[in-house]
Amino acid sequence: MSEKFSPTAGMQNGFDLARLSSLSDHERSIVERRQSLLGPSYKLMYRHPVELVRAEGAYMYDPAGNAYLDCYNNVPSVGHCHPRVVEAVSKQLATLNTHTRYMNDKILNYTEQLVETFGGGIGNVMYTCTGSEAVDLALRIAKFNTGGTGIIVTDYAYHGITSAAAAISTTMGPYVPVDQHVRTVKAPYQYRAQAGVDIVQQLADDIEVAIADMQRHGIKFAGFIADSLFSTDGLLPDPAGFLKKAIAVVHKHGGLYIADEVQPGFGRTGLNMWGYQRHGIEPDLVVMGKPMGNGLPIAGVAVKPALLADFGRKVRYFNTFGGNPVCVSAAQAVLDIIRDENLQSNCHNLGLYLLDGLKTIAKDYPQIGDVRGAGLYFAVEFVTDPESKAPDKALTLDVVSAMRERRVLMSTTGKEENSLKIRPLLCFTQKEADQLLESFDQTMKALRG
Amino acid sequence: MSEKFSPTAGMQNGFDLARLSSLSDHERSIVERRQSLLGPSYKLMYRHPVELVRAEGAYMYDPAGNAYLDCYNNVPSVGHCHPRVVEAVSKQLATLNTHTRYMNDKILNYTEQLVETFGGGIGNVMYTCTGSEAVDLALRIAKFNTGGTGIIVTDYAYHGITSAAAAISTTMGPYVPVDQHVRTVKAPYQYRAQAGVDIVQQLADDIEVAIADMQRHGIKFAGFIADSLFSTDGLLPDPAGFLKKAIAVVHKHGGLYIADEVQPGFGRTGLNMWGYQRHGIEPDLVVMGKPMGNGLPIAGVAVKPALLADFGRKVRYFNTFGGNPVCVSAAQAVLDIIRDENLQSNCHNLGLYLLDGLKTIAKDYPQIGDVRGAGLYFAVEFVTDPESKAPDKALTLDVVSAMRERRVLMSTTGKEENSLKIRPLLCFTQKEADQLLESFDQTMKALRG
Repeated sequence: MSEKFSPTAGMQNGFDLARLSSLSDHERSIVERRQSLLGPSYKLMYRHPVELVRAEGAYMYDPAGNAYLDCYNNVPSVGHCHPRVVEAVSKQLATLNTHTRYMNDKILNYTEQLVETFGGGIGNVMYTCTGSEAVDLALRIAKFNTGGTGIIVTDYAYHGITSAAAAISTTMGPYVPVDQHVRTVKAPYQYRAQAGVDIVQQLADDIEVAIADMQRHGIKFAGFIADSLFSTDGLLPDPAGFLKKAIAVVHKHGGLYIADEVQPGFGRTGLNMWGYQRHGIEPDLVVMGKPMGNGLPIAGVAVKPALLADFGRKVRYFNTFGGNPVCVSAAQAVLDIIRDENLQSNCHNLGLYLLDGLKTIAKDYPQIGDVRGAGLYFAVEFVTDPESKAPDKALTLDVVSAMRERRVLMSTTGKEENSLKIRPLLCFTQKEADQLLESFDQTMKALRG
Repeated sequence: MSEKFSPTAGMQNGFDLARLSSLSDHERSIVERRQSLLGPSYKLMYRHPVELVRAEGAYMYDPAGNAYLDCYNNVPSVGHCHPRVVEAVSKQLATLNTHTRYMNDKILNYTEQLVETFGGGIGNVMYTCTGSEAVDLALRIAKFNTGGTGIIVTDYAYHGITSAAAAISTTMGPYVPVDQHVRTVKAPYQYRAQAGVDIVQQLADDIEVAIADMQRHGIKFAGFIADSLFSTDGLLPDPAGFLKKAIAVVHKHGGLYIADEVQPGFGRTGLNMWGYQRHGIEPDLVVMGKPMGNGLPIAGVAVKPALLADFGRKVRYFNTFGGNPVCVSAAQAVLDIIRDENLQSNCHNLGLYLLDGLKTIAKDYPQIGDVRGAGLYFAVEFVTDPESKAPDKALTLDVVSAMRERRVLMSTTGKEENSLKIRPLLCFTQKEADQLLESFDQTMKALRG
């Protein structure tokens, strides 16, 4: 394992402390206080970090009142500081906030509505505070039920930061080793697939091979966990349906399929509430988080009831803050807003519009090797040369940085950090979509025009 | 391992589903909806569960408007729905709520004040959403820095519900095995110590033995984690100072001492902000949680900066909701309230008053073997016979249940579930303390008078 760590270690699009002298006195003092109080784990985004003091709708504001268009954050999905979320949370906070070991019907009413969005066999929800805790719990349930310990993940996947979630994450670098019972498969990367290779079949075959390798090592297969958009692998949404064969193999071998919906869930992909629904498949467990409470810490695992029957009887699990009425009231408001403001059709329509717009701009630049997306989640992949498809990380970071100077915030994704990660809020308007396209067009012209 | 699980499995003072028919139609329908939507992991407290719809100060209210005195919850420590917490959170929620990868000074101002409360070498704080996540992170930091994997815990300790936290918890029952690199020592139980045994020396000696046993098995010692009040072991606060010798042994062998302050922290023990401070010792890592944000999900690990220098450089750690400005504003309000309302001296004074009152009542009942406490946290231990000290779980549960019928809420603790766990909010008044004592006196008279 080679050691090559900059002060941004392990983080894409991170501020490099070596550039501290490029900041203003005020900015430098904040960075130094962060180092001194929070320590070196706390990184900032962007070559030139952003200071924020307020936010509203699709915009965030710095102390001077400049507006930044949020094309990155997947948590405040229905809009920053959405008044209905603020009202629901404030009201509940003044009324009651306690754990789930007393009777209260808020959590039940919400769960009833949430369960309906899954369809199929998913019938129970267990609440946690973070997606990491939800992944951690899903792994416990999967291992308990299968008696296995072997987990399959994709090659550059991130599933969270508890010890167990980090141990199945393949993005963590050499100092956070992947668990020895984990096997990895390549994510289905259409743009980089070799000619003639069927990536759908390839994924299914790779899973077969991984399970066989586990068997050879005496490891019992427990399950396959994947984000159906493969957000950290580079955002790989196509072709919809490609997970079907893979999941059939998982089930054939007695494993469980855990859909990590922390990124694609809650309408991010458009007309489907959940990313896996684009593939016409049914998971055994669904992990959800980030946008669930628009910033209040609520997350959870939705699961087929049969998987909890024995687990619930034998394994003690209680999450003090999980499913408290304040966080549930935020989650309830989010579901209500998605429905009342037609955010899924907005996401679908604006998603198609933006994908088209990005592809149109891309035509003028051979450096853009690929544009792909689903709903309001896009990747724009940069290469030094369209033939060799060699990744161009430097240009990608230049674009992100130039966009930030134009006050349009996005980031990067992919193992080679050579794709833009563009994730507008679901509440974007046509005008905001146009601002994103115009800024991107101008940025590309300025950098490569 | 014997299997003896009731439907309350793994939970003290749990509602037994076999008693469903004893509930009203309305209550039964809630319990059934919980089973059907949340699944069997969700348990209710009390023989007769409590339905709550609002709370204020030291009281929680059922739908009929009956007031329950809260002598149990350690989360809403400064008072249910405290107006300053409600205001701070509501205001911040309408202003800005995002992650820590942008610059914002709220988290820095709070951390500065928090760090001051530790004194000594603790200088950095990393934020999570739950105490479990904080324990999980503390273990990662301890293992990273020592290169060890061996952890020492007490015999009946609970440290959380992530996979890694559950694997060092010795309260989880036969289906959640303790990690093979974990060794256990007896908590220092003065009331049950054999005559002539020095429990202070005993704990230090037991830790020596545990470390030697690790060495024999090729396990490198990483550290010792303990709640200085030993809340689940039965609440064992005395004699203050007893941890000193134990920690010296831990340090002599190159291990780290992780103070689990999720229970004793934030003034629970009275004049000291942190439980470990009662012992005149200094931890290497401090884990905090529950009362930190009065119900908003915020928790964290405070740590000596040297332990993060390399960890922060090499290990990627980012908690999306951890330290967000909304949760931080709740935590800031809690610190402000503790100071402005003199809650630590209130806790100290009322704590002494209540301890004295409980001891006075105990004199009349040979069934009460021991009364102990620190600050506003008490255990009352029941035995069938003061000579043999045989635990009386049945009487303990009868008392809890009778107190609940008098609308005073508490629970149980200890491996044998034969101690009352009494944990009044820090904002208790003299009148509320007297209500607790009177109800307890009446309950004991009714049950054993």
